[in-house]
Amino acid sequence: MDIIREDEAVLPVVSREVQYSFSVYEALRIIGGHVVHLDDHLHRLAVSCRDIGLVHPFSDHDIEDSLDRLIAADSIGDATARIFIVGGPSPLLFITYADLLTYPDSYYSDGVKATLYHGERFMPEAKTSNLLMQYIALEDARKHGAFEALLVDRNGFVLEGTRSNFYGIKDGTVYTAPDDKVLNGITRISVIKAATELGFRVAYEPPRFDELLSYESVFISATSMAAMPLSHIDGKEMRKERWKEVLDMMRLVRKWE
Amino acid sequence: MDIIREDEAVLPVVSREVQYSFSVYEALRIIGGHVVHLDDHLHRLAVSCRDIGLVHPFSDHDIEDSLDRLIAADSIGDATARIFIVGGPSPLLFITYADLLTYPDSYYSDGVKATLYHGERFMPEAKTSNLLMQYIALEDARKHGAFEALLVDRNGFVLEGTRSNFYGIKDGTVYTAPDDKVLNGITRISVIKAATELGFRVAYEPPRFDELLSYESVFISATSMAAMPLSHIDGKEMRKERWKEVLDMMRLVRKWE
Repeated sequence: MDIIREDEAVLPVVSREVQYSFSVYEALRIIGGHVVHLDDHLHRLAVSCRDIGLVHPFSDHDIEDSLDRLIAADSIGDATARIFIVGGPSPLLFITYADLLTYPDSYYSDGVKATLYHGERFMPEAKTSNLLMQYIALEDARKHGAFEALLVDRNGFVLEGTRSNFYGIKDGTVYTAPDDKVLNGITRISVIKAATELGFRVAYEPPRFDELLSYESVFISATSMAAMPLSHIDGKEMRKERWKEVLDMMRLVRKWE
Repeated sequence: MDIIREDEAVLPVVSREVQYSFSVYEALRIIGGHVVHLDDHLHRLAVSCRDIGLVHPFSDHDIEDSLDRLIAADSIGDATARIFIVGGPSPLLFITYADLLTYPDSYYSDGVKATLYHGERFMPEAKTSNLLMQYIALEDARKHGAFEALLVDRNGFVLEGTRSNFYGIKDGTVYTAPDDKVLNGITRISVIKAATELGFRVAYEPPRFDELLSYESVFISATSMAAMPLSHIDGKEMRKERWKEVLDMMRLVRKWE
């Protein structure tokens, strides 16, 4: 693998795999030159490839080595990195990075707003470039002054956000969608561990969109967010009884990085 | 717009719109230096953009002019061209071309095989790069020695192929999905006109996947295929009573180009 300039990291317009979004990716945090939860990300990348039938010649060792060389070459301290693999007869691998994606403290102390979007992901367990619905749902959220859009399935269940997992807390239990219905967030693993550590039970039953006020608090998680409380959904103010615990989870998730 | 070499037609890996497949396209036939049904393709391109909220500065005149200049520069006679627009803060337009996509005569005389794939398109009326399901369904078809995969919705209706529209003929009527459930093929417009000219009624009711043998014939249409009869679906031999009429439609569609 070669280290190239970012403007040389390009995809051919005439590639059928580019045209069909036949590609997978991972977004990772680099903190103090160390890649957080790299093994988990590499595992999920392999799951994504397996699920969509994408075969490529890049080993975990190749990817890890390339990341290390990139970090050394650019003296990267903190950053958000992206591993991106396009399939097909001539697979392509790119590792890019940008400033570490962080959010103001107020997002945690005041919570953030979300909207609801009715739609279901194709192959939810695979992290692919087939993200048009997520793009449109998030644009819609932003138009309404919200930070995230939550995806509601045909049965009325809130499964996940466009770039986050989703949870509701009620009666000592954290409710979230089952693994096979959503993207299995790396941070979700930590959130569930943190919830357990804080004494919560975990139930893999997603909240319904019309019962959100029955939860003592609702929140989202993602690599860049850790755990972040939701203040409003579709303009309705959510309950805040468990925000303290959500922030405790956030701190544990960050501590374990 | 500049004329560039094909290997210079590239997309930046770090573009969020590239990463999210926030792009639309059209595939067109150029025959004897003339772009077939250009106005219809430009109209559908505009519909695709409108549906997904993609705003760009390229006028129909820009696109037509660029196509004309490309045809003149490379002395293009027959070809398959592709118009491709990526949205976002800095929209990109590419027009590329390749050898005219044609099929052996035997595909029409003997029909082609198809498989069934259970899945629904997101925003079916928009022709976008969010094509992962189509890619996977078509790979599955090819593994089974088939030419096309037909998409079956949650209610058991065969709505369309991965790159074609779908029809069944029974009792003097051509059955096909309603406009708002499928991609509105440019060739579909011609097929419906041809069917009417040949004395068929047209019913916008899609065939069910478990009732395909009740149709006297089933066929698909696309820009590259015109109308093409299906000989087998998921290994089951289809009826052939209306193949003559399917091929008559094919000839009319080509005549009107």
